[in-house]
Amino acid sequence: MTTPRLTALVDTLPSTVPFVGPETQERARGKPFRARIGANENVFGPSPAAIEAMGEAAAGVWKYCDPENFDLKQALARHHGVAPENVAVGEGIDGLLGYTVRLVTEPGVAIVTSKGAYPTFNFHVAGFGGRLATVPYRDDREDPDALADLARREEARLLYFANPDNPMGTWWPRETVSDLIDAVPDGTLLCLDEAYCEFAPDGALAPIDVDNPKVLRFRTFSKAYGMAGARIGYAIGEASVVANFDKIRNHFGVNRIAQAGALAALADRGWLAHVIAEVAAARRRIAAIAEANGLDALPSAANFVAIDCGRDGDFARRVLAELVARDIFVRMPGVAPLDRCIRISAGTPADLDLLEETLPAALAAASG
Amino acid sequence: MTTPRLTALVDTLPSTVPFVGPETQERARGKPFRARIGANENVFGPSPAAIEAMGEAAAGVWKYCDPENFDLKQALARHHGVAPENVAVGEGIDGLLGYTVRLVTEPGVAIVTSKGAYPTFNFHVAGFGGRLATVPYRDDREDPDALADLARREEARLLYFANPDNPMGTWWPRETVSDLIDAVPDGTLLCLDEAYCEFAPDGALAPIDVDNPKVLRFRTFSKAYGMAGARIGYAIGEASVVANFDKIRNHFGVNRIAQAGALAALADRGWLAHVIAEVAAARRRIAAIAEANGLDALPSAANFVAIDCGRDGDFARRVLAELVARDIFVRMPGVAPLDRCIRISAGTPADLDLLEETLPAALAAASG
Repeated sequence: MTTPRLTALVDTLPSTVPFVGPETQERARGKPFRARIGANENVFGPSPAAIEAMGEAAAGVWKYCDPENFDLKQALARHHGVAPENVAVGEGIDGLLGYTVRLVTEPGVAIVTSKGAYPTFNFHVAGFGGRLATVPYRDDREDPDALADLARREEARLLYFANPDNPMGTWWPRETVSDLIDAVPDGTLLCLDEAYCEFAPDGALAPIDVDNPKVLRFRTFSKAYGMAGARIGYAIGEASVVANFDKIRNHFGVNRIAQAGALAALADRGWLAHVIAEVAAARRRIAAIAEANGLDALPSAANFVAIDCGRDGDFARRVLAELVARDIFVRMPGVAPLDRCIRISAGTPADLDLLEETLPAALAAASG
Repeated sequence: MTTPRLTALVDTLPSTVPFVGPETQERARGKPFRARIGANENVFGPSPAAIEAMGEAAAGVWKYCDPENFDLKQALARHHGVAPENVAVGEGIDGLLGYTVRLVTEPGVAIVTSKGAYPTFNFHVAGFGGRLATVPYRDDREDPDALADLARREEARLLYFANPDNPMGTWWPRETVSDLIDAVPDGTLLCLDEAYCEFAPDGALAPIDVDNPKVLRFRTFSKAYGMAGARIGYAIGEASVVANFDKIRNHFGVNRIAQAGALAALADRGWLAHVIAEVAAARRRIAAIAEANGLDALPSAANFVAIDCGRDGDFARRVLAELVARDIFVRMPGVAPLDRCIRISAGTPADLDLLEETLPAALAAASG
């Protein structure tokens, strides 16, 4: 029997995954991690009100979701001072990025991003046959001028830019982001990934302008709201641009329990403030642990800290492996020169006690 | 400011939705439905064990899901007597059908289905630029011989076939399905949508043969397991075919709470048997209500019953509108001659009391 005929594109794609999950590593290791601080998950968890709302929604999960995400869109629109027509709710930023790439990508189309930026975005670009053009980081930050220049030269249809940045945790002030927005060439759509924006200091976020069809802002309930496993995020943009998601999205694709949880999470500003404070404390603690080991921690506007291990990528990979061998799940940037760093998510005090306890031995083993 | 450049395909697509949700109708009506028996949801709900598992999983939703869906795939493989490599877990059958269409669709590629079959499949085909070729239903059933013939003539890459069928509820015995599988032309992939299979009588399901690369079986937790809002389903097939999903799927896209719920739901065979019995009773009751009103109910192997309103589509649409006006959410097939019917999902006794109470007046109003 012959196998099915796939597209020429799919035939060229590897069976791959942007990230290996910690569960996969645990199965390979045969034992669990003692600290899960590698995927920038929010260890402080969702709002108790969101947990309660999700628990209450479980019995009603026999119903499909409201495909219009009406209540959540209303609440998000109020929260951001925009109209519901400016908001698209989807299956996390990952899902929305996939839709966005699909909306613009045809064979040969150029998509611009930074070399070493979010791998899942690149996975989507490859998956739809786009041609990735990259700009190196400069001083551990994405380089807005170079990105805009490359987008112009390549006539790119998308420009990906994260602020705060992942994997480095660095950020630009709002003026720089506004300048980038102004510099986006005609025909290019700026994907402004703000997954970590709630952790950023004042002055880091450019104002939202839903009259500008050249920018989509991506936000999520996965990070500050502590609902990564719920798969719910949203995009904000000009109404006619946002309407395009309705052409291709999986209309009933958002989990009903996630809708209920997100609505409750958004309303609980006290819990959000608590999480942000805990994350800030964890960042300071991670920096102190790095310093105590003679390493530099990069300033971070996210819920993780990149620690510069002071040597090359091979060394940092050894440090990472030694931490993993000591039951600490961490990750690191994938390309030089970012890969001289390891990336530690803001953990609980107990998580960071373990980090403090194990990092010296991990460094010694990596050096030895 | 210019708008972003979209693909030529996307520019041709309408902003559309395969189904209008009952919540949308409720908002337009300004009042809730009294019976929600239009979307073939399982009003008897998920297993209490699944509800408990989802409630317990809510606090842990700060973690991303296991992108390998390992535990659930193991359990499904055991349940079906196949290997985990034969199983792909995804965001409901809708999500998996979208991935499947994407795997094979290039401009001009033909996809075969029945005229009036599942609209969401057609939405995906349009969304990826496929060319839909259709076969009429014959005696309210999909026509396997004609479908295989058309797939051969069109060199179709996909052939969609549902057993039991939606929207008619009809089914074929396993021998016919096995004959169809044998008749699938080389290069065509049969999408065998078995969303409703748990409700089917003995003898309706063809045996699963994971050595055959020409067939993918689609199953879901949305129907018999009562978890439509959780967005979790699976495909079973030959391992190398199934591996293709890993090239394009949203690896972290399945909700973590849904994973926990599905695992518990799959294990609770007692609840499943209870649901199946309740659905069978509801089908009998719907048929009796139809008969009492001088209408024929089609035999059904699903959790809904198509009632032949005895006249044309316009009449059935009026009957439907009159039921909706009486606060009963129901749907109906979209094309002739199927649209002489309305489709009633297996409701609770209270739901069907309402149907019994309102159908005579709805019919009278539609006739008057």
